[in-house]
Amino acid sequence: MKEYQYQYKGEFRLENGQSLHDIQITYHTAGELNAAKDNVIWICHALTANSNVTEWWPNMIGDELLFDTSNYFIICANILGSCYGTTGPLSINPLTGDPYYHSFPLITIRDMVKAHELLRNELDIRNIYKLIGASIGGFQALEWSIINPSLIENLVFIASGSFASPWNIAFNESQSLAIHADPTFGDNCEKAGLSGLRAARSIALLSYRNAITYNYTQQEAELDKLDSFKAISYQRYQGDKLIKRFNAFSYNSIIKAFNTHNVGRNRGGVEQALTKIKAKTLLIGITSDILFYPEEIKLVQQQIKNSKYVEIESFYGHDGFLIETKRLTRIIKNFLNVKKIESCKN
Amino acid sequence: MKEYQYQYKGEFRLENGQSLHDIQITYHTAGELNAAKDNVIWICHALTANSNVTEWWPNMIGDELLFDTSNYFIICANILGSCYGTTGPLSINPLTGDPYYHSFPLITIRDMVKAHELLRNELDIRNIYKLIGASIGGFQALEWSIINPSLIENLVFIASGSFASPWNIAFNESQSLAIHADPTFGDNCEKAGLSGLRAARSIALLSYRNAITYNYTQQEAELDKLDSFKAISYQRYQGDKLIKRFNAFSYNSIIKAFNTHNVGRNRGGVEQALTKIKAKTLLIGITSDILFYPEEIKLVQQQIKNSKYVEIESFYGHDGFLIETKRLTRIIKNFLNVKKIESCKN
Repeated sequence: MKEYQYQYKGEFRLENGQSLHDIQITYHTAGELNAAKDNVIWICHALTANSNVTEWWPNMIGDELLFDTSNYFIICANILGSCYGTTGPLSINPLTGDPYYHSFPLITIRDMVKAHELLRNELDIRNIYKLIGASIGGFQALEWSIINPSLIENLVFIASGSFASPWNIAFNESQSLAIHADPTFGDNCEKAGLSGLRAARSIALLSYRNAITYNYTQQEAELDKLDSFKAISYQRYQGDKLIKRFNAFSYNSIIKAFNTHNVGRNRGGVEQALTKIKAKTLLIGITSDILFYPEEIKLVQQQIKNSKYVEIESFYGHDGFLIETKRLTRIIKNFLNVKKIESCKN
Repeated sequence: MKEYQYQYKGEFRLENGQSLHDIQITYHTAGELNAAKDNVIWICHALTANSNVTEWWPNMIGDELLFDTSNYFIICANILGSCYGTTGPLSINPLTGDPYYHSFPLITIRDMVKAHELLRNELDIRNIYKLIGASIGGFQALEWSIINPSLIENLVFIASGSFASPWNIAFNESQSLAIHADPTFGDNCEKAGLSGLRAARSIALLSYRNAITYNYTQQEAELDKLDSFKAISYQRYQGDKLIKRFNAFSYNSIIKAFNTHNVGRNRGGVEQALTKIKAKTLLIGITSDILFYPEEIKLVQQQIKNSKYVEIESFYGHDGFLIETKRLTRIIKNFLNVKKIESCKN
């Protein structure tokens, strides 16, 4: 994929009433936009990912793959609040000349979509053939399909929800408490709060897996030990890996945005909001996902008119969306090839 | 219940090779020890509880209740490493005259049981009619039944395991990372690490509940908000409540002990260790428990000779052991009244 930057000059009004000025959006594309500009596949990324989809979703983008670069124009934009090139807490506030740090305002999922819309307008895209997102990426895709229903032809919503459940928020708040337990997070510097972020990632990981996956993959070979358990090294390793590539400000900003996710807000409730969707919609649940339970995704499906629910029987929990690429490819290809929608289990 | 202290003078050797000197054990009792000293009900408490069982297990101790004070002598001792009167990291190290703090050695579940044994000898108790424990209390009860099989007549093991699973350890490590993200934990003072402990409690709470309980009890009444979610206040409230009554050193010491739990250690494995148990054993699982899954408890039951497994269909997850007192009372009374053991579901 190739990287591009879009500079938006002017005020960017946020849902909470505050504003950002002169935002930058970093995005990656692959394939060519056709003359009719109707061959667009737009991918929305999750919490700590970036717009270079090939880095986190292997074997999905390329010739004859699900995101077929010979026929489609694939695009993914880094989300607002993140740290991969789109305006976030470490960006320079043009009004002060200094990074935002803690003065970065509250971002919502709708604000992220509003930024995607700016970019879409800039690229003069009037139709999205397929909009796809998993987890927080699913939040954006769902919101976008409500904000601009006629724009999206096909919506693919994976391991995600129509609102942040209290359970989701409790997981996020535990992470936020861990970040705030690290007093360096009060500092105005890039490396602030990294010990807290390390703990936060370890917590998040629990929700991306589940007991069965975890007990299988992290079982001890040596049974007589009193410490240095494999599960301890694994949690630390994952925390250490994240703090090398992310920062606590962006992380905190995105989990706050996660908490705000509720397609029903100021729209008369979730059910009412979902009736606005015009896209042909595929919802995919993962049997072992403990963050977004299949039962909850089925309920979302029941409220979207032209939609179908498919379940992936997988051992990998929420992380299944990153791992089960073969099954996702088959399910999504089948869905796009079928005109009439029926519910099925894969 | 009445509180007592037992002072043990001398060296207390720990499993890891280190020693404590002159340990103190705080315990509570109710009812009277009979002349034969064979009417003992010994309760082992969980992570942050204390030896005054009436404070955390309501309607369980008293005349005609499960722990019937008219006929039985009820006893519970505060565990080693804790902060409710038994020697722990904030106790004075008699060798230095200062509190242990970070110099407090690694405690194992077997060390906790060894301390219970000291107290039992002091009280000249040669028979325990009923030994009962849930969660980490179950760890102690199971270990004790292996260390001293002929001592225990009836063993009741609730929502617990025969070893700390990688999933358990991963939850504990996330908590430990949160505590260590708070640099005040490096200080030698009582209040060190409290912000970290607050986050740790919030994490632990996730494992004591589950998505269904959580989403039901913490659902939002006001749907259009962008922050101040009920789930956030609840997590913070629980964290704040714990740091008023506990300390980070004891918490960290007990979760490390939790991690060491493995009845099979240096005994040729779990299965081999469990064959040593002579007590008539009742194992209770809670359907919605995500810390100790019913399936795992069933496996433990299959390895104990004279045993029975009963499942409580409950909404409350792991915390069900504190809440489902009526069902526990009925199940345990039934078990003790029946001579021949058969498996059943309640």
